[in-house]
Amino acid sequence: SDDERLKLRTSANAIRALSMDAVQKANSGHPGLPMGAADIATVLFSRFVKFDAADPHWPDRDRFVLSAGHGSMLLYSVLFLLGYKDMTLDQIKNFRQLGSKTAGHPEYGHAEGIETTTGPLGQGIANAVGMAIAERHLNARFGGDLVNHKTYVLAGDGCLMEGISQEAITLAGHLKLNHLIVLWDDNGISIDGKVTMSDSTDQLARFAASGWNTTLIDGHDAQAIATALEAAQSSDKPSLIACKTIIGFGAPNKQGTAATHGSPLGADEVAAARKTLGWDYPPFEVPADILAFWRAAGKRGRAEREAWEKRLAANSAKSEFKRAISGALPANFDTVIADYKKKLAKEPPALATRNSSQNALDVINVAVPETIGGSADLTGSNNTKSKDLKPLNAADYGGRYVYYGIREHGMAAAMNGMALHGGVIPYGGTFLVFTDYCRPSIRLSALMGIRVIYVMTHDSIGLGEDGPTHQPVEHLAALRVMPNLHVFRPCDAVETAECWQLALESEKTPSVLALTRQKLRPARLTYSAKNLCAQGAYEIAPSAKKSKAVIFASGSEVEIALDAKALLDKAGIPARVVSVPSMDLFEKQSKAYKDKVLGTEKIRVGIEAAVRNNWDRFIGLDGIFVGMSSFGASGPIEKLYPHFGITAKHVLQAVKKKTR
Amino acid sequence: SDDERLKLRTSANAIRALSMDAVQKANSGHPGLPMGAADIATVLFSRFVKFDAADPHWPDRDRFVLSAGHGSMLLYSVLFLLGYKDMTLDQIKNFRQLGSKTAGHPEYGHAEGIETTTGPLGQGIANAVGMAIAERHLNARFGGDLVNHKTYVLAGDGCLMEGISQEAITLAGHLKLNHLIVLWDDNGISIDGKVTMSDSTDQLARFAASGWNTTLIDGHDAQAIATALEAAQSSDKPSLIACKTIIGFGAPNKQGTAATHGSPLGADEVAAARKTLGWDYPPFEVPADILAFWRAAGKRGRAEREAWEKRLAANSAKSEFKRAISGALPANFDTVIADYKKKLAKEPPALATRNSSQNALDVINVAVPETIGGSADLTGSNNTKSKDLKPLNAADYGGRYVYYGIREHGMAAAMNGMALHGGVIPYGGTFLVFTDYCRPSIRLSALMGIRVIYVMTHDSIGLGEDGPTHQPVEHLAALRVMPNLHVFRPCDAVETAECWQLALESEKTPSVLALTRQKLRPARLTYSAKNLCAQGAYEIAPSAKKSKAVIFASGSEVEIALDAKALLDKAGIPARVVSVPSMDLFEKQSKAYKDKVLGTEKIRVGIEAAVRNNWDRFIGLDGIFVGMSSFGASGPIEKLYPHFGITAKHVLQAVKKKTR
Repeated sequence: SDDERLKLRTSANAIRALSMDAVQKANSGHPGLPMGAADIATVLFSRFVKFDAADPHWPDRDRFVLSAGHGSMLLYSVLFLLGYKDMTLDQIKNFRQLGSKTAGHPEYGHAEGIETTTGPLGQGIANAVGMAIAERHLNARFGGDLVNHKTYVLAGDGCLMEGISQEAITLAGHLKLNHLIVLWDDNGISIDGKVTMSDSTDQLARFAASGWNTTLIDGHDAQAIATALEAAQSSDKPSLIACKTIIGFGAPNKQGTAATHGSPLGADEVAAARKTLGWDYPPFEVPADILAFWRAAGKRGRAEREAWEKRLAANSAKSEFKRAISGALPANFDTVIADYKKKLAKEPPALATRNSSQNALDVINVAVPETIGGSADLTGSNNTKSKDLKPLNAADYGGRYVYYGIREHGMAAAMNGMALHGGVIPYGGTFLVFTDYCRPSIRLSALMGIRVIYVMTHDSIGLGEDGPTHQPVEHLAALRVMPNLHVFRPCDAVETAECWQLALESEKTPSVLALTRQKLRPARLTYSAKNLCAQGAYEIAPSAKKSKAVIFASGSEVEIALDAKALLDKAGIPARVVSVPSMDLFEKQSKAYKDKVLGTEKIRVGIEAAVRNNWDRFIGLDGIFVGMSSFGASGPIEKLYPHFGITAKHVLQAVKKKTR
Repeated sequence: SDDERLKLRTSANAIRALSMDAVQKANSGHPGLPMGAADIATVLFSRFVKFDAADPHWPDRDRFVLSAGHGSMLLYSVLFLLGYKDMTLDQIKNFRQLGSKTAGHPEYGHAEGIETTTGPLGQGIANAVGMAIAERHLNARFGGDLVNHKTYVLAGDGCLMEGISQEAITLAGHLKLNHLIVLWDDNGISIDGKVTMSDSTDQLARFAASGWNTTLIDGHDAQAIATALEAAQSSDKPSLIACKTIIGFGAPNKQGTAATHGSPLGADEVAAARKTLGWDYPPFEVPADILAFWRAAGKRGRAEREAWEKRLAANSAKSEFKRAISGALPANFDTVIADYKKKLAKEPPALATRNSSQNALDVINVAVPETIGGSADLTGSNNTKSKDLKPLNAADYGGRYVYYGIREHGMAAAMNGMALHGGVIPYGGTFLVFTDYCRPSIRLSALMGIRVIYVMTHDSIGLGEDGPTHQPVEHLAALRVMPNLHVFRPCDAVETAECWQLALESEKTPSVLALTRQKLRPARLTYSAKNLCAQGAYEIAPSAKKSKAVIFASGSEVEIALDAKALLDKAGIPARVVSVPSMDLFEKQSKAYKDKVLGTEKIRVGIEAAVRNNWDRFIGLDGIFVGMSSFGASGPIEKLYPHFGITAKHVLQAVKKKTR
């Protein structure tokens, strides 16, 4: 009815007013999207999204992802209006100020109701695919009584132009994720001006080609929005709703132009917009009746949530469900790992660490039912599929292995979404060199502080003939400089098991496991109850006599370090070897421990088949580094290591030269 | 005719035999694609590609890009068969051996006829878009007499699944690059098995949605291949030819399966394939008549090339064309920069370095007609569009500014293609934090050693309110560890001009210019004929008295360093300041110079609003570093620098603490 339409428009104007006022006060921000998409958000949250503002962590809530993160004021306005406790009017007034919950872009963890950090374009829609995968999987595991919800996305042109969106939407289409609904804020404007300046894509045809249902509506027509959302509820495919909107809707002189995208409207235009919208209230004031409408919407889901709580209480899987959602590992996890390490100690295997990783996963995936593995089309190379792990696909969402296809970026972003959804622990593989392809998502794992495990094999020139395009040289260094990221490079089966344990136990830090293609000698030959890798670096081979040299190495080069020690010992230069599976964990140890491990030997050697960079910290600026200083080359591994001078003999020679 | 068909099939079998034999001998490699796509390559090179094997550098040759680089033996076989001098039979026999021209994946510069380095999937097709842009642009600049050629791509499923391909094909479709023809080796197989395990995309519909002509053919039917290629010659859009093929065609027990993709067939299967294909010749032997067919194909273009040479000789733009193609800058370039620097010295401006960059471009783009600028939808923020630069688009390929859209990865890969094509010098911008989005292509710029200039603005927390998703913290470090990449971080307008000069003069090294959003005080106040930034680091403020402290800083933090020096001088701790615009160039200086710049002061300070990592080299392991150790935060710049302790006062305090 006309009354209803008016009500919805006025309610939407509350978003518009709060957004333009907050941006104006901050003198920084993006009013265009919140004003343009306000009608969509109003219909969506007042009628469709399943949630209860009083319990933002209700596991079966619908997820809402603002993929176009620059429109953060849309989300903040909505959360405030709906009555999320975190999101006070003061927070809105402190938009973009240091220490506020209302950062320039939505930051996961800042305020409840922010389901993921967005801003880097295309990430949100790709996160949402992971959330939708997690939902379908948990639905299969725990049943529709406990898990049965939607994932909504609001995406902009930028999200759809980014390549990652293609990986995301084709993956979603392939997996028939029909609980995924994307609303495209189709305003035809990007920062440089009209989208037609840089793009001519028929987005509906593109989504249809990817296996989506698509529809095109007027994004300012509440009835059309509702009808489209209604239809999407029962879709057998993911749904794209293209919503034609006017960016900056309501700003009479600027709407429909790039001028509203990323700058305050200015006092005059804000005043003019008030007039145009019929919004006669001072900044940050929302009249009681409109606030009442929104607060009622915020409580819409209460009954449904309470019914769900009852179902959970009565469900036989209740405690497993709660544990899974909490993110806690099964109580026996440490024992399982200890037993596995004991087994390894009995018969230390000579394996590539990628194979050791698979063996560890054979144990872990039985013990931890939350893991969901996968690979970007390198299953056999990454050794990510443990035995008995069944594919997760449209025919069986209960499987636990995703064939992600050649979509490293989409995989990483989906894993972020899975971790954010909760109830599952994602890990996925590609070659270490291709961390470059998913680096923006790895960064978001680290920034959000979530448990995503990257299984990155073929971690050096040791992969051989595939050559420099496939040989990581700078990647360990480039990953180690990222805040809040564990970079593990284990040297044998025991260290690999320990690193997996640490990765799984790091709930607030993502991990990269850098693993070899080539076979390695076992280095850890006796059982240690303690997880030695937890210290980041530790003495793996002490010196019988007082050591004159210390050798630090990681992964495949620990073997070379041990050989070098033997040569040095023989040459009358007693040496000890320190294995460095994780530089970041080492930095977190006590000063006393670090000093002890670093030692005071004058002769200090670092060995890693990668660039020197991070090793100065261990060997000092005048230490001996045996590693790479250029890109690699194509050839058999047996030729490459000597070619680049990464051998025990080279270490011996370098040390002798230094001691001369 | 049947005869012709047989001839073509037999000629294609030469590719198959060489490929399976080379892979078998190397005991490593990918026989599947060369055997599957041999028929396509045979028709393409014997009838369509315009080239002359005797002159691989003919500027108006058609470009052929093997985007599915793992199928390198296809390219090597073809180059050998066509008679490219570089590609001897010995090289084929030494496939994947250290030092051979026949690396695991095609490496640009290894052998003539390899137009780009491929292997990381999706890069080749995106390079090709850049080549096609360069071709249309040079056609507009120099006319069809000199420039009028096609760009052919052979792409696999992997290329099409990578997100970068979406950025590439939508850009190509938008620009109506009708000289771009993509042959998709549609074999339905990826490493994990059937493509249907991970993808259900209707690729033809997807390309059509991106503005391409599309057609689907039998990739083993020579007539069908020829007909499709014929039609593509006069297309008004880029063309996709989907070629249904059987991977490993001819290997009777393995063809059509993932088993042929990335492993040798094995001696038995190679023998069986010989039988199936009717190829009765020993390994690496090509019968005379078949070789004659191919060698004739290799000479097909001779007359056309000779005619072109004559046209060039008679063309009034001959010398400009030759200079442009050679990559040489105009003779007066150094003078232009010197004059500009003199002008700056007269009235040193207080500008953000992104604005200084735009001012430099105002000068450079007039002096150097080869530059083609652009931005991934941040034109006004990256300041990449100098005055009078017109858009390059389908309506006017003669323009020199590309609105790349929100396609950082596609932009970077296209720039690689433009640089590889030659005749143009590409530069393009986005935010520094989004180097992550295009890192795989930056790596290929560095690996190939080509002149691509990345204009990366908003280079620290100094960007303010957009917050941690937009604030680079680890990116300078992550880029500095990449071999053969110049990372420049100038501190004012003069340094910015000098860094631009260096970037343009570095023909074999790509450059990243890290530029500020915020305004900076000028630091270089007097004219220096010498390009001081060429030394990588230099003393920008000497100490009047014998210095007790040395401060190293880059970019926006040089200002803080100079302020800190003033405070220290006042506090009786004489200090000098070293500006470090480029760590990599510094490393290339003489030991004497480096020692002098580094000095011997006990108090050593590094300042950069980024992670410490690379600075140890300047300040030692126990130096004082004033910078970041975590992700940033959303807030005004005035609050952020003090919040993270990056101020002159903090430097003073830290030094005092140290000297206590």
